[in-house]
Amino acid sequence: MERMQGHLVQVEIYGQSYNLRGEGEAGYIQDLASYVDRKMREVSEVTATVDSLKVAILAALNIADESRRGLRPDPTITKGGPDRVARLIDMLERCFADA
Amino acid sequence: MERMQGHLVQVEIYGQSYNLRGEGEAGYIQDLASYVDRKMREVSEVTATVDSLKVAILAALNIADESRRGLRPDPTITKGGPDRVARLIDMLERCFADA
Repeated sequence: MERMQGHLVQVEIYGQSYNLRGEGEAGYIQDLASYVDRKMREVSEVTATVDSLKVAILAALNIADESRRGLRPDPTITKGGPDRVARLIDMLERCFADA
Repeated sequence: MERMQGHLVQVEIYGQSYNLRGEGEAGYIQDLASYVDRKMREVSEVTATVDSLKVAILAALNIADESRRGLRPDPTITKGGPDRVARLIDMLERCFADA
């Protein structure tokens, strides 16, 4: 099965394993996956939401927010700093009360 | 109930309504939500995945990827350009075949 190009990387995100394909350096996809996993765990801690879909969407919103503010995900930072968590709380507190 | 600060914004993401709280300009949270919604729909089209959680996680990965590459979400662009979609396909084709 040589029709697939790029790296096939098994990652774990929020307790589930996925096979992702990516280009570039071998660790890049793993870094992105670790970042999303970390964001989801931060969201889960802050919101106490048990719905994985909501956690994933809030994480995506938070990543987009950071990107818009010019804060790029840094693979060398393995945990969110206190400021990040505080901003997450500011933005997400009491959110996701379903309409 | 004046204990909540910031804007309470009702948004729709991938067919579901959520109440989000945010600071800053009133439209900012709406812009972020529209961006995440758009990313999820792009992922859904490319991967034909029906699992909303997988779609949300792939969208979060894609947003993190764009952020890492220095591509910030632009609220003035209402659709992903062809290059974005092509890169999405490059990265995500055949991904999420569960491990």
